[in-house]
Parts: sequence; C-alpha cells; structure tokens
Amino acid sequence: MSTFIQKGGFTDLVATTRVRLARNVRGYTYRGLGLGEYREIADKVWSALQTAPAIASDFAMTEVRAGSQEAAALVEKHLISPDLARKGGFLIASSDGGAAIMIGEEDHIRLQVLGSGLCPKECMETARRLAGLLEGQLQMDYDEKLGYLTACPSNLGTGLRASVMLHLPVLAANSGLSQMMSWAGRQGFTVRGAYGEGSKATGAFFQLSNQITLGLSEDAIIDRLIDAATGVIEAEKKAREQLRTRDEIGLSDQVCRAAGILRTARRIDTAEALECLSYVLIGLQMGYLRGVPSQDIMAAEQAVRPVLLGGTAGERDVKRATFLRAVTENLEVLD
Amino acid sequence: MSTFIQKGGFTDLVATTRVRLARNVRGYTYRGLGLGEYREIADKVWSALQTAPAIASDFAMTEVRAGSQEAAALVEKHLISPDLARKGGFLIASSDGGAAIMIGEEDHIRLQVLGSGLCPKECMETARRLAGLLEGQLQMDYDEKLGYLTACPSNLGTGLRASVMLHLPVLAANSGLSQMMSWAGRQGFTVRGAYGEGSKATGAFFQLSNQITLGLSEDAIIDRLIDAATGVIEAEKKAREQLRTRDEIGLSDQVCRAAGILRTARRIDTAEALECLSYVLIGLQMGYLRGVPSQDIMAAEQAVRPVLLGGTAGERDVKRATFLRAVTENLEVLD
Repeated sequence: MSTFIQKGGFTDLVATTRVRLARNVRGYTYRGLGLGEYREIADKVWSALQTAPAIASDFAMTEVRAGSQEAAALVEKHLISPDLARKGGFLIASSDGGAAIMIGEEDHIRLQVLGSGLCPKECMETARRLAGLLEGQLQMDYDEKLGYLTACPSNLGTGLRASVMLHLPVLAANSGLSQMMSWAGRQGFTVRGAYGEGSKATGAFFQLSNQITLGLSEDAIIDRLIDAATGVIEAEKKAREQLRTRDEIGLSDQVCRAAGILRTARRIDTAEALECLSYVLIGLQMGYLRGVPSQDIMAAEQAVRPVLLGGTAGERDVKRATFLRAVTENLEVLD
Repeated sequence: MSTFIQKGGFTDLVATTRVRLARNVRGYTYRGLGLGEYREIADKVWSALQTAPAIASDFAMTEVRAGSQEAAALVEKHLISPDLARKGGFLIASSDGGAAIMIGEEDHIRLQVLGSGLCPKECMETARRLAGLLEGQLQMDYDEKLGYLTACPSNLGTGLRASVMLHLPVLAANSGLSQMMSWAGRQGFTVRGAYGEGSKATGAFFQLSNQITLGLSEDAIIDRLIDAATGVIEAEKKAREQLRTRDEIGLSDQVCRAAGILRTARRIDTAEALECLSYVLIGLQMGYLRGVPSQDIMAAEQAVRPVLLGGTAGERDVKRATFLRAVTENLEVLD
C-alpha cells in the first residue's frame, strides 16, 4: 500500500496542506450533466489511472449517493465537498485518503492531494503526477492563452487551489486575526474559518488559500502560499508569547486543565473537546505539555466530530471521551 | 512530642471527630468576666497541666486577640470558636492541635479533643484524662443532682458535646438529607452544615452532634453518637450506589474530571476546589480513584480555605492550585 499523505513541517500549527486541481473533459458540457455522464467520466479517469498499475492498485472508486450519511462522513473527512455530497457523483480515492479525485463537482474532475503539516510543494508534486496520468488518456479543456478552462472563472488558468489549515487560537481570540486577514488579502490569499466562520466549536482552525489561479505559474502560487503561511504562523507565535507575558498563569492554567479534562473525562461534547484540543495544541507548542505528537491532536480534532463518531448524542459523548483518553494517555504536564 | 489527634475508621466519609467538655470554675461569675479574670483562670489551668509534665510539655498557651487575623485562622482550624475569636481570651493547645483548651468562651473552660475518622471513644478517653488533670487542681461548679453547671442550660450535666464531621455530598444533593436530619433529630442529634448551612462552597460537610447533655452518661452519649453516625454513613453509601445505578457515566465523569482538574489546574478558587475535593472523596470511596489516602483529601478540604492561605485572592488561587497538585500527585484514575 502506497502512502499518498504528504508530510511537512510546523505540525504544531499547521494541521494539513491541500492542493486541488480543477479539470474538465473536452466534449462534455459544464452544466446539467446527469449521473450517467459522470459515470462515463469516472470510468475514463479510472482507466487512465490503470496506466500506472502500482498507483492504481491503491485506489478505489465509490459512488457518492446524494444526501447520504456516508457522503456526510466523507465531507467531515475533507475527502469530498459539501456540494458533491448534496448532488451525488463519484469518488476515486487512495486508501489512506491522501489523494482523492471527485467527479461531478462544479468541474467534471477535481483532484485533491492532502498532506500533514506545511507541505504545499510535496502535495503539488503528487497532484501533478496524478494529473499527468489522467491527461495522458483524457483530453482536457485547455486554452493556449487562458490555460485550463473551468466552470467558474475564479479557477481559470492553473485550476489550482492550494491551502493550508492553520491553528490560530490566540490570533482568533483578539484583533490579530482581522489584521492578518487583510494582510493575507493583499498577498492574494483568503483566510476563512474551518466549518463555518470563527465559531468556538471550530477549534480555531483557519484555512489560508490562494485567490488567484490565473497569470501565475503553479510553482509561483505554491511559493507564495508558503510565504504567506509562514507569516501567519509567526504572527500566531508572537501573539502567544505576548499572552504568556501578559498572563502566564492564566494561560498555563487553561492549557493544563484542558489536558486534565481530556485525560479523565468520561463524556464530553464536541465543543468542549475542540476547545480542550485547541489548548493542548498551544501547550505542546509552548512547552507546557509533552508526550503526544501535535499531529495526533490535529487528527483527533477531526475524529471527534459527530458524523464520524455515529450513534446518539449521548453515545457519541462517551465514545468521544474514550477516544480522547486514549489519544492523551501519554500527555504530560511540565512543571 | 506526643500525639493528641486520635485515629478512627470510616476515613473516606468521616473527616473528624470532636469531643468537647464545658467546665466552669467555682468562685467566678458566668457573665461579665474581664480579660484579667480569664488570665487568672488560664494560669490556673496551665498550672494544673504541669502536674503531668509529660503531657504539659507538649502544650503552649497563647492569648487570643479579639478580632485578629490569627484568631480567624484558629477558627478555620477549628481550634477556637468564632465567639472566642470575637471576644478574645486564651488558648492552651497541644502542638498538633489535637487537644485544645479555650478560656473565655461562654463557659470559663472548654476542653476539646480532636480525632481523624470516626473515633468518639478515643477522643472521650483523652478528654477525660485532661479534664481529670484540671479537676485535680481547680474546683469546678458541680451539682450532685444536675452535674456540671454551665452558662447555657443546653450544656448542663455532662457538659459534653460530641460530634463527627461527615462528608455527605450525595445525600445533600437530593432529598435524603432532610429525611436523615429528622431521623437524627429523633435520636437526639442535630445535623448542620459546616461553615454555614448547605451552601455549595462547604464541600458538603455536615456535623452530627448530640443535643442532649443531661440525663445520659458520657459513655451513653458516645455510644449513641457512634450508632447515629454509622446510620448516616450507611444512608450516604446507599445513596451513592443508587446514583451509580442511575447514571454511572455521569458520576464517573464528574469524579474523574475533578481528579483531572486538581492534578493540573494552575489556579483555582475555594468553591471549585471544595467541589472537586468532594468528588475525589466520592471517587476514592467508590473505587473510581486510588493512590491518595482519604484523610489527605479531608485535610486538604481544610487547608484550601482563604484565611489559612493568606495573600490576595489572586495569589491564594495560585497557592491553592499548587498545594492541590502536590496533594493529588499520586491520584490515579481507574478504568
């Protein structure tokens, strides 16, 4: 089994990196395609992957049934978009979820590569390799001057959307975030809250992604994303140090209590779990805690969400607590 | 150094046992005595103790200055009454605080012996030994028919007040407490909240003490107290098992979280500390937790009170948290 999930640095502040390429197959309209046509395209994509058997053997194709519970779980895992879950279509994904090809989204084909930590270059490289396999067999809509044609002009050109999911609890808690958002905007990037705008239940995760897909090369977009992400990471770190200077006891109290709750609770709801995980991530980065890799806490932040846990609300709260005790078993508070 | 603090059983539900004897010295009026007269009586008590040099060597005499901070701290340690702290007087106490003689309370002399756990017999024995020393040298007001004469008729006869401090959080949280109070009343005992009636900040400690001092021998009062205390302990244990049956997860969640908070918090106020300690005591008795003796948690319940910690509110919250982390360092959550 191959590994498609890429690995990068800054794992205590960067949850994931995602690179997505939009492609449309020549000969199909952009609107009003039915499930039959999407199935045709999916079959063609599947065939194209078979030209590299070592890669293809790790992929599986599944039909995404519109509005199903399975579709909702794929959304929470970030394997498909909410749009595809609603409309239905097809997903061709690697077994580790690191590479996923959606068929039936706004564009015929959306190819996504996922990484842990800050790794846009690595994700881009894998995405290019997979796109190359597809383009070897399928003719895509491409214009000499404009580049790849897409359903929405905002994706025109490279069809590339590269993003990093950043954990910015301290910037989010003060005015730092809006400042940082306008700074990112001037660099051609947008920052938006994961799972809805900045509610407490999001665990303070924010997605930084490129707004511009046209007039810049893929490599230039990737380089700029790395620069912007690094700037935001530094701003968050600085805000944390300012908080430490201002109220060291208050900060360490919240971090250590969060660790205590995750290690002991017998039931916990999503909002409290996400808040505690957020403080634990701060604590690991700032040296109040140790013993568990940040990536495991980042992964837990995904895994505790309701749809992935299943069962009634009461059952989920117990399952969530049991899971979190296991994840934080080796979490140590430093004195 | 001798040990005057007696030891008893049921330490997971009984904080302390206290036996108090009221005595008045012949030749002094019961009301309107000045500090000079109390000093005379204190000196006589002090001399009487010297007839047993091995015991006397462990005692010290201090003047209680009316309304002082030191006096307030002695009240929180249960070494003197709030009344003596307000009026001023003298305290002759063993170095471990297990035996204390107040001069200047409602009665001229109040002799108190303290024990950990349920030990009224042991406390009574020590109190009798000390009272015997005093009575060997001082003539007390005594009536052949009535027994010892006291300022208030409620103490007439034996002058004995015997009490146990019980931890009854589950009875207190439901209707069980009022039922139990009327049951105890019918047996000639009263139940009252420690530090004011039943507020959450008391940590659910209740004092069970005899109402009747006349017409019963000391031994009969002590035996009845043991019976009443045992009955209340059984009622609390039964209420806990009913709670376990009704909501095992909820109960274990609160117990385990309390342990987690005490082991990690960097600052904690009195009310939260007492509530957490209360749940930890439940957890130790019910088998959810282990590793720290209940007596240590009972003692912590005293030690975290504001007057004993000193400093500003902010400083106290930090001191309290540091102290509680040390106390609960070896507290283990059982799965």
